[in-house]
Amino acid sequence: MKKGFCRSALFTDLYELTMAAVYFEREMFAPATFSFFIRSYPVNRRFFVACGVEEVLSFLENFRFQEEELAYLEGLGLFKPRFLEFLARLRFTGEVYAMEEGTIFFAGEPLLEITAPIIEAQLIETFVINALCFETLIASKAIRSVIAAKDRVVVDFSARRTHGVDAALKVARASYLAGFSATSNTLAGKIYGIPVTGTMAHSFIESFPSEIEAFSAFAEVFPENTVLLLDTYDTLAAARKAVQIAKKLEAQGKRLKGVRLDSGDLVELSRKVREILDAHGLDYVKIFASGGLDEYKIAEVLAKGAPIDAFGVGTKMGVSADAPYLDAAYKLVSYDGRPVTKLSSGKKTLAGAKQVFRREENGLYREDFVGLREETLPEATPLLKPLMKGGERCAPARSLEEVRKRVKDELSKLPEPLKEIHPGEVFYPVRYTEKLLTLQRQIEEEIRRKELGL
Amino acid sequence: MKKGFCRSALFTDLYELTMAAVYFEREMFAPATFSFFIRSYPVNRRFFVACGVEEVLSFLENFRFQEEELAYLEGLGLFKPRFLEFLARLRFTGEVYAMEEGTIFFAGEPLLEITAPIIEAQLIETFVINALCFETLIASKAIRSVIAAKDRVVVDFSARRTHGVDAALKVARASYLAGFSATSNTLAGKIYGIPVTGTMAHSFIESFPSEIEAFSAFAEVFPENTVLLLDTYDTLAAARKAVQIAKKLEAQGKRLKGVRLDSGDLVELSRKVREILDAHGLDYVKIFASGGLDEYKIAEVLAKGAPIDAFGVGTKMGVSADAPYLDAAYKLVSYDGRPVTKLSSGKKTLAGAKQVFRREENGLYREDFVGLREETLPEATPLLKPLMKGGERCAPARSLEEVRKRVKDELSKLPEPLKEIHPGEVFYPVRYTEKLLTLQRQIEEEIRRKELGL
Repeated sequence: MKKGFCRSALFTDLYELTMAAVYFEREMFAPATFSFFIRSYPVNRRFFVACGVEEVLSFLENFRFQEEELAYLEGLGLFKPRFLEFLARLRFTGEVYAMEEGTIFFAGEPLLEITAPIIEAQLIETFVINALCFETLIASKAIRSVIAAKDRVVVDFSARRTHGVDAALKVARASYLAGFSATSNTLAGKIYGIPVTGTMAHSFIESFPSEIEAFSAFAEVFPENTVLLLDTYDTLAAARKAVQIAKKLEAQGKRLKGVRLDSGDLVELSRKVREILDAHGLDYVKIFASGGLDEYKIAEVLAKGAPIDAFGVGTKMGVSADAPYLDAAYKLVSYDGRPVTKLSSGKKTLAGAKQVFRREENGLYREDFVGLREETLPEATPLLKPLMKGGERCAPARSLEEVRKRVKDELSKLPEPLKEIHPGEVFYPVRYTEKLLTLQRQIEEEIRRKELGL
Repeated sequence: MKKGFCRSALFTDLYELTMAAVYFEREMFAPATFSFFIRSYPVNRRFFVACGVEEVLSFLENFRFQEEELAYLEGLGLFKPRFLEFLARLRFTGEVYAMEEGTIFFAGEPLLEITAPIIEAQLIETFVINALCFETLIASKAIRSVIAAKDRVVVDFSARRTHGVDAALKVARASYLAGFSATSNTLAGKIYGIPVTGTMAHSFIESFPSEIEAFSAFAEVFPENTVLLLDTYDTLAAARKAVQIAKKLEAQGKRLKGVRLDSGDLVELSRKVREILDAHGLDYVKIFASGGLDEYKIAEVLAKGAPIDAFGVGTKMGVSADAPYLDAAYKLVSYDGRPVTKLSSGKKTLAGAKQVFRREENGLYREDFVGLREETLPEATPLLKPLMKGGERCAPARSLEEVRKRVKDELSKLPEPLKEIHPGEVFYPVRYTEKLLTLQRQIEEEIRRKELGL
């Protein structure tokens, strides 16, 4: 399956190219280290699930400008032929330190650091931020539905409402990785090997002369895979029709898989539908709910005792509706061996290549330290691992199933208060090492002296 | 430029395929009409800008399953060979009535209606909703920044924070169409012919031994195109360095294009920077602002008199942060000549193929009517136009520039209160014709009798 323009090297901001042209003219080819981190937590989030690293590595492996892209750049009239020839030959030759996908991490911690000749590290900025921000945003949103649903099945229904097709695919992958069971998105099923599932739409019911005829037709063609949509006309009347269908299937030795509620009061309707089904010995028929669901709604209906077995979660997860972006940055922290920083108000960055160290206690995450890359901390696990050297992967790519399992393991080590749907003022402790802070003070002092004459 | 997977026929929900398999088994090949409309206004929106229609038409023209996609479907074990053979031959043969891109429209009005054999019309649902919802969402968000900025330049800076790459491209196009002047997204520049622009990043400044050296290097390489970023260390100190650069450029007969503020109090800083520049005769140097901007912030700083000439608008426009999705639907309204509807609570749809009629008064939009397709209303302009017949375009595709101009014209006809950033309880009148309402009553009555025994 061709990724087409979705991994184009030309997917970059123009200023990356103009800055690169200046580096080129000045022969600035020394290595730069850029650090990607999330500055703060969105509403009700207290942790993040690392996602998008695999997409970044694939992009870097295949980074090159196509002829037609260079022709476009030439046509802009901004760049010299010598620089365009340089771009034509340019490949990514740097190294990547990053947390593996599925790692749980926190605000202020670098998720990924890239060290490469500054032109390479600069040109990839737009793609790197885009992929890491979005995929981490969605994995960190989707896991909240998984937590809220407890052990119930949660399925990705978001394809029609995501921001474009690339987003729909990334949402299907990120939500599966976070613990969703399946997706309705067939293309995502194909590309990532995620299980696909689905029920039926109102249009299907309406296209038949009557609801019962629509139900019958579907059950005839898919006797093993029928989930009847109940709310086209009247949910309880439809539930009684579902009983007829289930009995017909039983007569053939088959079982109706489920029914779906897509509107109305889910608590009341699920109870009444459950009663109708149970009254006819259909306790095996699952109740599936959908329609504007997210972790808040799932937690609410389950708290009220709704007998719902599975949830279809769409729009609000697929766009992370309560927090549709992350406050993240990809910042230069070192150039040519010289640690750098900026002083912009409210947007300070910490200088130097870094490492994140995690301490556990009694099988739970206790505290993290952000330090310099070369530091070692006793009894702490370094989380940033070398995943690429010299432009080539140096660690095995994990399967999506492995990553999904990792998320589950990590989640079991996360202190409970951080998993709450409304966590309040609880934060995981992330500290900075003395060495990191000392370096930062030195650099800031130096800048103030040099740039501000202080 | 290959669109790759972003226009795959397999980008559909699994249930579209299972429903299609049932239609196929039942030999249901009659025409169905589906209607796409937005149910309600998101926060502070009182109108929408039609966008995404072009993407839908391109998708429909090229609709076909690839061999590898069919092989994937076969592997699911759900579909019969006869149906997969049918899919292999399937093309879109239907007709599309839609508003042309750039048309201003309102909640409750169909933006697009498709009539095609039901399998075709059903399978494309996921893509159609995805494209129309997202592109209309963004055009309708971006135009608010254009309105807030009055006649100042607004540029799309969102590429790094959109939901994936497809989204970034669609945002660049939708925002340009809505009146933005340019994008930073080079790939979008290439694909759509949108002007590209950019300044410089903090990393650029930091990679040089000093800020003034970074400024000088950029101005040397791009003497006609330099916009200096001022807030890396200290905005006012940097403004004084910008004066030095501008004077050096003047000595070469060139002019510094601008300076950029990216953090801090934009009102106070823009005033002080303007003073510093003006005190040195640099009144031609533009002040560019960026950093978390949207229509609310633009309106606020301009109301306070900030002397800002141009705005870079990124994240909050690119994800439509205050309203990241539209409550829209693509609903069956007729099958085989029989108008249909559903009764789901809060999600009613109106039966029958429709037309939207607009009345103007004194050069302003006065009121719209939604009626049946075959109706004619005196002194009213029908907005849904036949854009595709028999699977082929039957109207000329408009250039992006033409669409952009149309938006500007339409905006000038929109009553002022609807353009407010905080419009309050003002709504444009959208009425339903008597014929449409009569049909709806008849259909609902018939359904209640048939399905509920009432």
